[in-house]
Amino acid sequence: MFDRFLPKEYNFFGLLEKQAGFSVAAAGLFKTAVATGSISEETLKKMQEIEHEGDEVTHSILDQLDKTFITPIDREDIHALAKEMDDITDMLCTISSRMKIYKISRVDKYLLEFADIIEESVLGVLCAIKGLRDLKNVKTILKACVEVNRLENAGDRKRDEAFIELFENEKDPIAIIKWKEIYQEAETVLDICEDVTNIVESIIVKNA
Amino acid sequence: MFDRFLPKEYNFFGLLEKQAGFSVAAAGLFKTAVATGSISEETLKKMQEIEHEGDEVTHSILDQLDKTFITPIDREDIHALAKEMDDITDMLCTISSRMKIYKISRVDKYLLEFADIIEESVLGVLCAIKGLRDLKNVKTILKACVEVNRLENAGDRKRDEAFIELFENEKDPIAIIKWKEIYQEAETVLDICEDVTNIVESIIVKNA
Amino acid sequence: MFDRFLPKEYNFFGLLEKQAGFSVAAAGLFKTAVATGSISEETLKKMQEIEHEGDEVTHSILDQLDKTFITPIDREDIHALAKEMDDITDMLCTISSRMKIYKISRVDKYLLEFADIIEESVLGVLCAIKGLRDLKNVKTILKACVEVNRLENAGDRKRDEAFIELFENEKDPIAIIKWKEIYQEAETVLDICEDVTNIVESIIVKNA
Repeated sequence: MFDRFLPKEYNFFGLLEKQAGFSVAAAGLFKTAVATGSISEETLKKMQEIEHEGDEVTHSILDQLDKTFITPIDREDIHALAKEMDDITDMLCTISSRMKIYKISRVDKYLLEFADIIEESVLGVLCAIKGLRDLKNVKTILKACVEVNRLENAGDRKRDEAFIELFENEKDPIAIIKWKEIYQEAETVLDICEDVTNIVESIIVKNA
Repeated sequence: MFDRFLPKEYNFFGLLEKQAGFSVAAAGLFKTAVATGSISEETLKKMQEIEHEGDEVTHSILDQLDKTFITPIDREDIHALAKEMDDITDMLCTISSRMKIYKISRVDKYLLEFADIIEESVLGVLCAIKGLRDLKNVKTILKACVEVNRLENAGDRKRDEAFIELFENEKDPIAIIKWKEIYQEAETVLDICEDVTNIVESIIVKNA
Repeated sequence: MFDRFLPKEYNFFGLLEKQAGFSVAAAGLFKTAVATGSISEETLKKMQEIEHEGDEVTHSILDQLDKTFITPIDREDIHALAKEMDDITDMLCTISSRMKIYKISRVDKYLLEFADIIEESVLGVLCAIKGLRDLKNVKTILKACVEVNRLENAGDRKRDEAFIELFENEKDPIAIIKWKEIYQEAETVLDICEDVTNIVESIIVKNA
């Protein structure tokens, strides 16, 4: 019990960066797969491995959070960051799995664009998270946050465009069910990235 | 840093009321549009403006929350209220946008009723939020909360009714996809309103 | 106001166990109904009664939480447990209601299996919650948590299997819309159960 008061060095920053790194890896893998038009057994396995490793880091963070009273930034913020970044990788894994189940086998213009935006966004997240170690680089961090925010707006417009075309041109309702879900989930990845940078911005304000 | 300890007057009540006011504006606009059977370009633009202004107020609240240690009511409660009220306007904007994308162009009995219930509910939210300034009006506040709760239940039944008719009479699966989503989102607005008043009730209990 | 400091005996453990008991009752009722292939008027009424009673216990917990400063375990954890367990019963009620609205009337292999997994999972939740009273039984509690986690993974695979078959064999898009939602919600019950045991695990770590 008394142990919890001791300011152990739990390396929260390193673990959060590791999580952001898994998001980047997942986004890269997703982009490559989307360019081929389908998710192979091998891609899905790799994606699940990344997701699993991400889970373990998340678990480490939450566990260490429960074991210590002293944290370098607010406890709730570390908790929220760990959860949200876990969700990024989870969601990319879910989309990939769903694409395989739905036997998607065509290169889709909108999904290609989503994969690009997602990759840029997770790179922004990584930059923002890396910045937390030294809050003196406020400008760099905020620039990354603004960028992630911009990409979320771009994603909203992209989903709307994709929906308009889908409902205008696709006559097969089952295809609509599949693609509607995929586009929606792709956009959700960007929402989660924005949630991460919102927390980062809040940390900066609190420490200003 | 030291600044955070000073009890600045941040006018959280005024900002929360402003947010509730945007919800009321969005609900009014939605009701008018639904009565015409479709969402025009102009309506969507107005709705997005309201949503954008709402976003800015939300941002102000969260920002001021990060900058102060002294808050008139529990910090977490202000945070949660700001987020939930932001979600009300967001969701009304999402439904409107979706209706436009889906080229909805008929007056729908259930959606008309939803628009009425939503308007009543956000008025209840506004009343509850206004009450927070002076917790002596507990009766008025609680009456509004009970009303919002009743409207949420009414919305659940309305969605069930709408679903029963939709799945019984609509034979076009693509129309089912569209309307199912619209009804579900309309009901979600009422869920969020109830979340707001649940927080208000909790604030009252804590300050009793 | 001063009352809030007094360590009243609010019996949070008893109320949480009561909630877990309602989840078990709802899961049992669900399993029986699924075995008949449809949800009768009577089953739905019973389910709604359970859900309603669960709501009242949730409300009691949150209310007592607002009225006291001294809690046997972290306030946020009690709050989160109460909310999540409420969600288990809510979701089982939602699935049942949806099945009735969709006029489901066939015994479905996957849903039978889901009903089994859900029943096992809520029993695990009940065991974990009962363990909170005396944190010396850490082994028993953790065993239950590991089991709930395992069942969540099993549910993920079950949903994927069900989706694969649904999209391969079902040609009616409206049937796909219905079953996709039902499977997804069944899997969500398992997610929520895992959320509960994650909180329990966190409580154990904090009290180690």
